[in-house]
Amino acid sequence: MENAYFPLLIPMSFMTKEAEHVEGFAPEVAVVTHAGGEKLQEPLAVRPTSETIIGHMMGKWVESWRDLPLRLNQWCNVMRWEKTTRPFLRTSEFLWQEGHSVYAAAEEAEEETLNMLRLYEEFAKNVLCMPVLTGRKTEKEKFAGAVATYGMEAMMHDGKSLQSGTSHYLGQNFSKAFGVQFTDKDGTLKYGYTMSYGVSTRLIGAIIMTHGDQRGLVLPPPVAPVQVIIVPIAQKKEGVLAACERLAASLKEAGIRVKVDDSDNSPGWKFNEWEMKGVPVRIELGPRDIEKDVMTVSRRDGFGKEEVSLQNAAETVKGILSDLSEALYQKAEKRMQERIVPAETLDGLLEAVNGGNFVKAGWCGCRACEDKVKEFSQATARVMAKENTAETCVACGAPSVHTVFFARAY
Amino acid sequence: MENAYFPLLIPMSFMTKEAEHVEGFAPEVAVVTHAGGEKLQEPLAVRPTSETIIGHMMGKWVESWRDLPLRLNQWCNVMRWEKTTRPFLRTSEFLWQEGHSVYAAAEEAEEETLNMLRLYEEFAKNVLCMPVLTGRKTEKEKFAGAVATYGMEAMMHDGKSLQSGTSHYLGQNFSKAFGVQFTDKDGTLKYGYTMSYGVSTRLIGAIIMTHGDQRGLVLPPPVAPVQVIIVPIAQKKEGVLAACERLAASLKEAGIRVKVDDSDNSPGWKFNEWEMKGVPVRIELGPRDIEKDVMTVSRRDGFGKEEVSLQNAAETVKGILSDLSEALYQKAEKRMQERIVPAETLDGLLEAVNGGNFVKAGWCGCRACEDKVKEFSQATARVMAKENTAETCVACGAPSVHTVFFARAY
Repeated sequence: MENAYFPLLIPMSFMTKEAEHVEGFAPEVAVVTHAGGEKLQEPLAVRPTSETIIGHMMGKWVESWRDLPLRLNQWCNVMRWEKTTRPFLRTSEFLWQEGHSVYAAAEEAEEETLNMLRLYEEFAKNVLCMPVLTGRKTEKEKFAGAVATYGMEAMMHDGKSLQSGTSHYLGQNFSKAFGVQFTDKDGTLKYGYTMSYGVSTRLIGAIIMTHGDQRGLVLPPPVAPVQVIIVPIAQKKEGVLAACERLAASLKEAGIRVKVDDSDNSPGWKFNEWEMKGVPVRIELGPRDIEKDVMTVSRRDGFGKEEVSLQNAAETVKGILSDLSEALYQKAEKRMQERIVPAETLDGLLEAVNGGNFVKAGWCGCRACEDKVKEFSQATARVMAKENTAETCVACGAPSVHTVFFARAY
Repeated sequence: MENAYFPLLIPMSFMTKEAEHVEGFAPEVAVVTHAGGEKLQEPLAVRPTSETIIGHMMGKWVESWRDLPLRLNQWCNVMRWEKTTRPFLRTSEFLWQEGHSVYAAAEEAEEETLNMLRLYEEFAKNVLCMPVLTGRKTEKEKFAGAVATYGMEAMMHDGKSLQSGTSHYLGQNFSKAFGVQFTDKDGTLKYGYTMSYGVSTRLIGAIIMTHGDQRGLVLPPPVAPVQVIIVPIAQKKEGVLAACERLAASLKEAGIRVKVDDSDNSPGWKFNEWEMKGVPVRIELGPRDIEKDVMTVSRRDGFGKEEVSLQNAAETVKGILSDLSEALYQKAEKRMQERIVPAETLDGLLEAVNGGNFVKAGWCGCRACEDKVKEFSQATARVMAKENTAETCVACGAPSVHTVFFARAY
C-alpha cells in the first residue's frame, strides 16, 4: 500500500460519471465556481470522497495485470454540507483516511473489503478501547455507488449509534465509469474491481461519547496525548519538584507520555483540570510520599487512590495503563451487550429504542418495512447480523430474511 | 507548541479585515459560492493561508498574559489560483505546515520569527542536503500583511531561485484586525504581537531541482523512502535471493530503509529504474560476491562501484549514506557559491543572470530601482544580505543601503 495525495477539487463532470454516486453526493457538495478573480468554465466540487478523482487516475495508470493490485491510501480533509452539525460527530469538513484499491478479481476486492473492516474493528477495540458491531449495510444505507457497504457501529452513552468506519466493495461500478481496464494474462482487456474504506475524525467523537463521564473526557491510554499527569503536593517544599521531574523522566524513558503540572494552581484545581481533559492516570507526589518512597496513583475511571512504591514506577504505571485500557473496553462492552435487546413488533422496537437500546430484530428484506421502522421509531438499520436468527420481520410479520441491528443514529 | 486544525473555508469577510492581506490574496483565491444545493449567503474562500481564521480564533481564546505565548501549528492543504503552474514548484493546491504564534511583546515575536527561519535553514541543510540563502525580504516581496518577511532561497540547477520557506513578523496588524487582546500583568488591555511561518511540498520540487541529474532523481538519504536497493545478480542461482534477504534484514534492523528488487526484470533494467527513482545506494549481490563474502556498492552520485565486505554491512552502509549526504550538500553548496556573482551595473546584472547566476548587488532601497531591475532582467530581489557590503545601487548609482541577492525565481 502506498500513501498518495489527490486534488481537493473534483470537476463536476467526474462526479456525474457514476450515476448512483452523484445522486448520493451532489446534494451535499460545496462548489467552487470562481477562482483567480474569474468564473470557472466548469464548477469544481470540494471532494466529499475521492472515488471519482482516484478512479480517473487509476484509469490512466492501470494497463496490465502486472499493475494490480494497486492499493492507495490518502490522508486528507473532505467536505459534506450538512444541514445540522454536531462537534466531531457531524461536521461539514472532516479529516479522514480513505483507502482505494483496484484488483483483477472480484473475490480479491471483496476479501480486502472485509479485511479492512476487520482491521478497523481491531483498531477500535485495541486502540480506542471501544466495542463495535460490524456487518453489512442494507441497500438503503449503503455508500452511493457501492455494490456492498460494511460498517462498524459504536454505541454512545445515550444509546444512539455512531457509524465509525465503513468499507465498500464497489464491483466494477467505478472501473467502468472511469475506464480502469487492464490486459489480463490471457491478453484480453478486462475491467478491474475496486473497493474503498475510510475512518475519520468522527472517531474522536466516538471516544468522547463512549468513555466520557460527568467530569469530562476519559481518554483511552493508547491514544491519550498525556497518559500520566504528575501533580506535586506542597510543591514549594524543597525536593518536591525535583522528585516529580525525576519520576517523569523515568516514565518518559519507558515510553510513557507524561507531564508534570508545576503551575501555580492549587492541587485541587489541577485535579479537576486534568480529569476534565481525560488524562488516564494521575500521580500525586508530596513530601510525605517522598519520605515513604511511594507515589499516590488515581485512575481516571475512578477506582480511588492507591499508594504504590516509587521503585519500578515505570513498570507499575505501564501495568495500570494497561489495566485501565482493558477496564474501559470491558465497561463499554458490557453496556453495549446489556443494551442490545430483541423485539418482535414495532411497538416493542419503539419502546426499546426509547429506552436507549439497540434492537436486534428480524426483517423481511423489503425497503417498505425498513422505511416503516424509521417512520415509527426514528431508528434505522445500522448493520445486518452475520446470521439470521429471527423468526419474523419486526414490521410486517413475514418470515425474517436478515436479522438487523436497529438504532437511532448520529 | 500545539498541533491544531482550522477550517478549510474562510468567510470572505475575515479576509478583508486586514487591508494589505486581502489585497495580496484576493486575486488568487478560489471561492465556494454554492453548497448543499443552495447559494451561500456569504462566499467562502478556500484558505490560501490561515492568518485570518486563526486570528479570529485567537481573538476568542486569548484573554490574559497567562494565555501567552500561544503557539499553534497546522498541517494542511491550501490553494492559490495560479495562472501558470509547474509540478511541485507552483501548484494551485499544495500541502504545507503553517505555524501561527501570538506573544505579549514585539521582541518575543520577532525573535521567534528568526528562530523559525534558522530552524528551516538547518532542516534544509541537514535533512534535504540543500544549501540556502536566508535573509529579510524587501517591502515589495514581503507577505501581504506582514511587517517583515524573512525567506530562504535555494538555487536550482538552472540558476533560478526557489523560495523554499518563509517566516513573517506580523506586528499588531492581525491582532488589531481580529481583536487579539490580553490583560497584561499591570491590568491594562493590550494587543498581542503575532508571527507566522511555513514550508510546503514545494520542498519536494527543491530536492528534485537541486540534486537531480540527467538520469533522474537523486534523493537525499535522510528523506529517501528507499535508501538502499539490493539488486540480486543471477537471482535464480541457489542462495542468491536468500543472501539478499539476509543482507536486507540486517540493514533494516539498523534502521536503514531497504528493499530487495526480486522482480523478473534484468539487472540492467533494475539499475536504470532505481537510478531514475533516486535511490541513494545500490547494492549488487551475486554468486561471486557471496563466495568472496563481499557486496558491490554504488552511490547514486556516481562514484563508480566498490567492493566491500559483507561483514558489518549495516555499519558500512550507514557510513556511505552519511558520506553521500555530505557530498550532496557540498556539491550544491559549491555550485551556489560559485554562482553568486557581484554586479555594479544593470548590464552586468543581466549578463550574470543570463549565465544562470545569482547576483549580489547594491540597492538604494527605493521601489523604482527594484522595479527597474526586474524590468531589465526579470530578476527579483530574493533576500537582503545581513550586511550592506556594496558601494552603489546597481540601478541608479546612488549609495547602497542594502546589499541584495537578485535572481530569476520560480
